[in-house]
Amino acid sequence: MALSEELYTKKEAMLYSQRIAQLSKALWKAVEKDWQQWIKPYDLNINEHHILWISYHLKGASISDVAKFGVMHVSTAFNFSKKLEERGFLNFSKRDDDKRNTYVELTAEGTALIIEMNNNYHNTFHSVLEGSLPLKELYGRFPDFLDIMAVIRNIYGDDFIDIFERSFRNFRESFDTLEEQPTVNS
Amino acid sequence: MALSEELYTKKEAMLYSQRIAQLSKALWKAVEKDWQQWIKPYDLNINEHHILWISYHLKGASISDVAKFGVMHVSTAFNFSKKLEERGFLNFSKRDDDKRNTYVELTAEGTALIIEMNNNYHNTFHSVLEGSLPLKELYGRFPDFLDIMAVIRNIYGDDFIDIFERSFRNFRESFDTLEEQPTVNS
Repeated sequence: MALSEELYTKKEAMLYSQRIAQLSKALWKAVEKDWQQWIKPYDLNINEHHILWISYHLKGASISDVAKFGVMHVSTAFNFSKKLEERGFLNFSKRDDDKRNTYVELTAEGTALIIEMNNNYHNTFHSVLEGSLPLKELYGRFPDFLDIMAVIRNIYGDDFIDIFERSFRNFRESFDTLEEQPTVNS
Repeated sequence: MALSEELYTKKEAMLYSQRIAQLSKALWKAVEKDWQQWIKPYDLNINEHHILWISYHLKGASISDVAKFGVMHVSTAFNFSKKLEERGFLNFSKRDDDKRNTYVELTAEGTALIIEMNNNYHNTFHSVLEGSLPLKELYGRFPDFLDIMAVIRNIYGDDFIDIFERSFRNFRESFDTLEEQPTVNS
């Protein structure tokens, strides 16, 4: 490749990279705000809720899975899990087939909390959801962001996407459970 | 709409919304890490660099534009701008046609800093860029994330996207300037 061509390519790459950085910041700040408003009544921060969410949808998870999938440091995952244990939402355990890792699992109270929070999801405003409705109207479905998924797979590995898909498969299946227990939180 | 259908729609919406929340968190954490590694040698935090970046590419901007486009509180934009002024990178000014707003503009030193940082962009690892290269190979170009752009336009308004496009148009044009001044930072 000629030097000028290589220079051009490097600049295009930088332009793209800074573009996605800006978009990502704007999107995350909106997501963060929506998330905080939703969980505010429950006295949880985003990391704490994320840990409960992961434990619920993976039906128990190792601290290192929580950290990996929640995109937080292992020490953050551990410390917030401890706080959630103290509040009675999580149990710590070891597994016979995996003595080295510490696992967390929701207690009945933690499960009830997650179900209650999902039931109340639409009681707060979700700007990202509202901002996506015109796309749903136009295309008949919500966007699936396959490009972003591919980039994230390349960064975080197949593991990450596997856990991601597994958690959402469980989430979808849990809809039935939610419907069967409409009075669980009343 | 039947009640069960509405319930289903609400659940689909929640599933989508939590899906994009997870993706957005993972993407932003990768962007944030790349960004921090890049700017680390210059003793700047992300907000400070973002303010310089916006001032450079918009060729001067009001504090409220910086806040809006940088997705930060006005007080954050103001306080970090003050620090950048103290370090000699930014000038504050009022404009004759707009007495109410405070504007910031890069000093020669601030401009040299931004150019130097862009010249050194590829000296640090950018996981998001690396993770996007397979898409570029496959499609012949980097993804443009039109879905995300549409969602962000709906959340932040046309203004935001206009400033976004303007800054990247200027960025692209500034490539020529960079090439004409290869020794500006030596």
